Amino acid sequence: MIIVMGAGASKQQIENVIEKVHSFGLRTHPIYGVQKTVIGIVGDDKTRVVEKMQGMPGVEDIIPILQPYKFAGREAHPENTVLEVGGARIGGDAVVVIAGPCAVESESQLLETARSVKKAGADILRGGAFKPRTSPYSFQGLGEEGLKYLAEARDETGLPIITEVTDPRNVELVSRYADILQVGARNMQNFALLTEVGMSGHPVMLKRGLSSTIKDLLLAAEYVIIEGNRDIVLCERGITTFETYTRNTLDLSAVAVIKQLSHLPVIADPAHATGRNNLVEPMALAAIAAGADGVMVEVHNDPDSALCDGPQSLTLAQFDSLMDKVRAIAGVVGRKMEP
Amino acid sequence: MIIVMGAGASKQQIENVIEKVHSFGLRTHPIYGVQKTVIGIVGDDKTRVVEKMQGMPGVEDIIPILQPYKFAGREAHPENTVLEVGGARIGGDAVVVIAGPCAVESESQLLETARSVKKAGADILRGGAFKPRTSPYSFQGLGEEGLKYLAEARDETGLPIITEVTDPRNVELVSRYADILQVGARNMQNFALLTEVGMSGHPVMLKRGLSSTIKDLLLAAEYVIIEGNRDIVLCERGITTFETYTRNTLDLSAVAVIKQLSHLPVIADPAHATGRNNLVEPMALAAIAAGADGVMVEVHNDPDSALCDGPQSLTLAQFDSLMDKVRAIAGVVGRKMEP
Amino acid sequence: MIIVMGAGASKQQIENVIEKVHSFGLRTHPIYGVQKTVIGIVGDDKTRVVEKMQGMPGVEDIIPILQPYKFAGREAHPENTVLEVGGARIGGDAVVVIAGPCAVESESQLLETARSVKKAGADILRGGAFKPRTSPYSFQGLGEEGLKYLAEARDETGLPIITEVTDPRNVELVSRYADILQVGARNMQNFALLTEVGMSGHPVMLKRGLSSTIKDLLLAAEYVIIEGNRDIVLCERGITTFETYTRNTLDLSAVAVIKQLSHLPVIADPAHATGRNNLVEPMALAAIAAGADGVMVEVHNDPDSALCDGPQSLTLAQFDSLMDKVRAIAGVVGRKMEP
Amino acid sequence: MIIVMGAGASKQQIENVIEKVHSFGLRTHPIYGVQKTVIGIVGDDKTRVVEKMQGMPGVEDIIPILQPYKFAGREAHPENTVLEVGGARIGGDAVVVIAGPCAVESESQLLETARSVKKAGADILRGGAFKPRTSPYSFQGLGEEGLKYLAEARDETGLPIITEVTDPRNVELVSRYADILQVGARNMQNFALLTEVGMSGHPVMLKRGLSSTIKDLLLAAEYVIIEGNRDIVLCERGITTFETYTRNTLDLSAVAVIKQLSHLPVIADPAHATGRNNLVEPMALAAIAAGADGVMVEVHNDPDSALCDGPQSLTLAQFDSLMDKVRAIAGVVGRKMEP
Repeated sequence: MIIVMGAGASKQQIENVIEKVHSFGLRTHPIYGVQKTVIGIVGDDKTRVVEKMQGMPGVEDIIPILQPYKFAGREAHPENTVLEVGGARIGGDAVVVIAGPCAVESESQLLETARSVKKAGADILRGGAFKPRTSPYSFQGLGEEGLKYLAEARDETGLPIITEVTDPRNVELVSRYADILQVGARNMQNFALLTEVGMSGHPVMLKRGLSSTIKDLLLAAEYVIIEGNRDIVLCERGITTFETYTRNTLDLSAVAVIKQLSHLPVIADPAHATGRNNLVEPMALAAIAAGADGVMVEVHNDPDSALCDGPQSLTLAQFDSLMDKVRAIAGVVGRKMEP
Repeated sequence: MIIVMGAGASKQQIENVIEKVHSFGLRTHPIYGVQKTVIGIVGDDKTRVVEKMQGMPGVEDIIPILQPYKFAGREAHPENTVLEVGGARIGGDAVVVIAGPCAVESESQLLETARSVKKAGADILRGGAFKPRTSPYSFQGLGEEGLKYLAEARDETGLPIITEVTDPRNVELVSRYADILQVGARNMQNFALLTEVGMSGHPVMLKRGLSSTIKDLLLAAEYVIIEGNRDIVLCERGITTFETYTRNTLDLSAVAVIKQLSHLPVIADPAHATGRNNLVEPMALAAIAAGADGVMVEVHNDPDSALCDGPQSLTLAQFDSLMDKVRAIAGVVGRKMEP
Repeated sequence: MIIVMGAGASKQQIENVIEKVHSFGLRTHPIYGVQKTVIGIVGDDKTRVVEKMQGMPGVEDIIPILQPYKFAGREAHPENTVLEVGGARIGGDAVVVIAGPCAVESESQLLETARSVKKAGADILRGGAFKPRTSPYSFQGLGEEGLKYLAEARDETGLPIITEVTDPRNVELVSRYADILQVGARNMQNFALLTEVGMSGHPVMLKRGLSSTIKDLLLAAEYVIIEGNRDIVLCERGITTFETYTRNTLDLSAVAVIKQLSHLPVIADPAHATGRNNLVEPMALAAIAAGADGVMVEVHNDPDSALCDGPQSLTLAQFDSLMDKVRAIAGVVGRKMEP
Repeated sequence: MIIVMGAGASKQQIENVIEKVHSFGLRTHPIYGVQKTVIGIVGDDKTRVVEKMQGMPGVEDIIPILQPYKFAGREAHPENTVLEVGGARIGGDAVVVIAGPCAVESESQLLETARSVKKAGADILRGGAFKPRTSPYSFQGLGEEGLKYLAEARDETGLPIITEVTDPRNVELVSRYADILQVGARNMQNFALLTEVGMSGHPVMLKRGLSSTIKDLLLAAEYVIIEGNRDIVLCERGITTFETYTRNTLDLSAVAVIKQLSHLPVIADPAHATGRNNLVEPMALAAIAAGADGVMVEVHNDPDSALCDGPQSLTLAQFDSLMDKVRAIAGVVGRKMEP
């Protein structure tokens, strides 16, 4: 870390700060500039203790140097992590496509959609059984009944399934059915839930929070990893900005940045980010071009009657067309798709 | 609701939309403009079913007219809600001051701080036993031990206590000790937790999420209210913006807006919003001037050794001085403080 | 337009509003709902007069229905606009690549870079002679000397040139040299400048402001168009958000949205958006995949010595490699590149 | 400055960086940490040259230590700057109130309003003659005719006048009439205009841009100061955020921060920030409580017929009431108002 002393800091204040740092068992390297003094700190990472010095007289700023995410970062783990889940590989040479309805609404709706996306080449089936909704008056999901339909769809199609878990008390239940546990954007900093999915041993998809920086997302992954669970996929799904035409702003730079900073695979969810059906294809293609390890899209056999997020779901025909283009873009950026 | 048909919508598309609305048992009032047709919808509020029409051919936009928060809004409940908690009244004539350390660190730290803030005139004691932290490497709180110290401090000082609950599984435990359950900004849309604190019957302080609009906050309150619990205090604690000098941006307009839209009391938390000790006093005074029902501040008997958020805590002397000015500002805006 | 009357609006207030609308020569269609009354307005577009009714007693909200940008929108001009500039076509079947240094620094630097980007297949040469800089202590550009070098480079390579104009007093000067006048993000709402470039008759590239919505951008284009100049290219170059790892957040959804809302061509500038050299290629490819009509990138023959934005410039080798991939992505999305 | 070398930087890369710094005539203080090497730089401030090293192999980050605004900052000028303009003092013991219509619409409208705000105790008269408007279809102001009415109002009331200048070509014209030149938010980084008002020698009010950080604002002030003009008032008028209920988000923390970082006076403009008449009073009071040197509000003798921003203007009665409360709040925070 670096401690920057203010332009008006007295010699005594500088000495006090140095002494305080030494009291933590750390070494200091002060640099006396023309206007300001900067104190470099060397030793084990003791971010927590040094940060508390922010209030000391004369201290202007404290600047961390090391990445705060030890296990999610590439510095400590340079090779890509590849998840193997029920036949699918996430983060390897091939890009993956996760498809299915926003919410599981009925057995027939799910099975019909599952068969179609399987046929079109999807790798993983998605579907929400527990839905986090901004308004308590919106459809909240079928619960365990929905999980059973998902398991049934997996048995029939062979597609591994991903579904969201919103409550630490349900992690055990959802783990009995799902192949991948999804932690939604609104729960990205629900640390009780992160710890629980970490302990579950199940693969986890962690969606970026709406106002979370890339660093916050990697720190949230760290919560899962320190429970011993490294099987994590990150997901960019749009951030909150001032633009209102789209629901959120899909930050595709974050996809490219995460590939540089972290070894974890990262996918994009263009439907939730934009909230508009006719933006899903261009943004899905853009995500693959930007280096994403896959995309997650919503497909509904009858979007007009969907109980949730109908306006952003693809029809089966649109999904078919998307798959062809994803495959072609993947080829351009040196990736492939499973046959 | 209002459905706006696109400029190029055909007569047939307009008729299809009208027919669809009728199929939900709602009446329509189409207005045929020079360039566009607008369809007004009259009947019971069926936001959910109408929203799904967003994808229908020709539909350009669907605009809701009624407030989506039925119970948190002033439309249905014009008079101010006043909470009575352990002798304190929140939302009444007097403004309240909630004070105490960010985290409960030890029995002596808490008791010493509690005595001092009581003496200075604080109305409610705060202190975190379960801390949500962005990094898993930060101090996470003392847990139940911290709750016991809080109860002890209440017994000695008579101040009611508020503390955060971060996990639905802990609501019962925290309720045994605390007078007010705090739901933090990162959990504002943790709907499992909102439902649980709603069922607890305990007063709840709900902090605005970092990227949540005022509407989102009122909808989150709605989750608590529909469980039968109307004892809610809202808290503005800063939103995420591009400005980096302050940790977040305290949105004091939101305080004034919430007083207009809702009957629930609203307070401000300037310390978490700004992250800087020397901004706490000006922002606390500004909050009272803007019409807040109170402020929550962090006070530590020894900020330099605080295990959490030391840089934003007030010393006891600073808190004393703040109380005098809060009292004076309250007077100017027609409020008072409990003696 | 639609006027929404508040839930508590009296019969008299509703009548007053209706009468006021009639006084503007407009017709009304009131819809009396269960809780609220909504007044539809039919007639010529008189947004300005109706908007002023916002303050009338009982009025809760006024909602516009028509697009406020009459000439930049697709509603009035469904076919794509294609600009023909010095041999290049922007907005047609082929995507364009605009390349060159951030700032013109010397004759040799510009000529060397121009020859190289021409050879690699660039369509248009860029280079700043007047630089808007956040700090007055940064390099401000060579002025007219830079323009002369640009013209020289055009004469030698045959590439049309684009350069920024920052001051309405310089529009005439810059127009003498440049093929396309660039209006930068910080000047997107410099209405004096927009009017001047509109009157110049020269093709204009208009960059999206850092906190401007898509609607604001189209309204800024409207300022140029109403001076009789429809030769406008829009440019997405990143918006201001809370994320600090990248300089701004490239909003590629905006590219796809603008193609839907407007007939004007739109390109992306990944270098200024991200501020990082190693994000330029993935974001340029993503932009083409999202449907952009082209990309603008910074290329420098010696980025390490660049006087401006060196960290985000591509080397000549990187640019060569980028061109190949852009060509391949363009093919996937049904576009081509000029040979 | 501090250069942070990446964890994987080689010994050779570190040496290259050090050598490069030395080539600029600067001294280095490398600190070899356990994981990373940090290079402190001592010498004259050569931000520009060092920043270009961002792209060098092994370099992870470059961190500036000195404030980039040399003359606007308190480091170089600890005492408050006080402007004396036509009898008013801005930045002194007394807070100032600037009042008047958004736009000058007619002689009678302006004079009537001017007399009333003078009587109520306003210190300075505002009124726009050149209006920057997002849409070209909105009222653009009366131009020089409006300036003449302003001068007439000054002659009659004795109030100094402030009005906006939007075009560098008009600075000379506006300076002939106005006491203070206002640079609006959309022009905060219109550097041609900043330079021109700097050279005018007239006092300048500089409004914070909608997506400008506090640092950007102080750098914009620096543009004015380096032309020899230190008579600058800064103005917080709301920033762009995701919240849509208010037009922008008034950032009152910025007021308190600017008072710490800079010697320049700072005022707040609650009307443009919120866009809502009923938020002007609470936000004006909050601004004074936060330490602002004054507030600027819009007052119209007949808000319902205002040609511009009617919904956010105060009536004369509301302004009278505001003045009383501003005076009282000022007293609490140790300020006064001119009699």
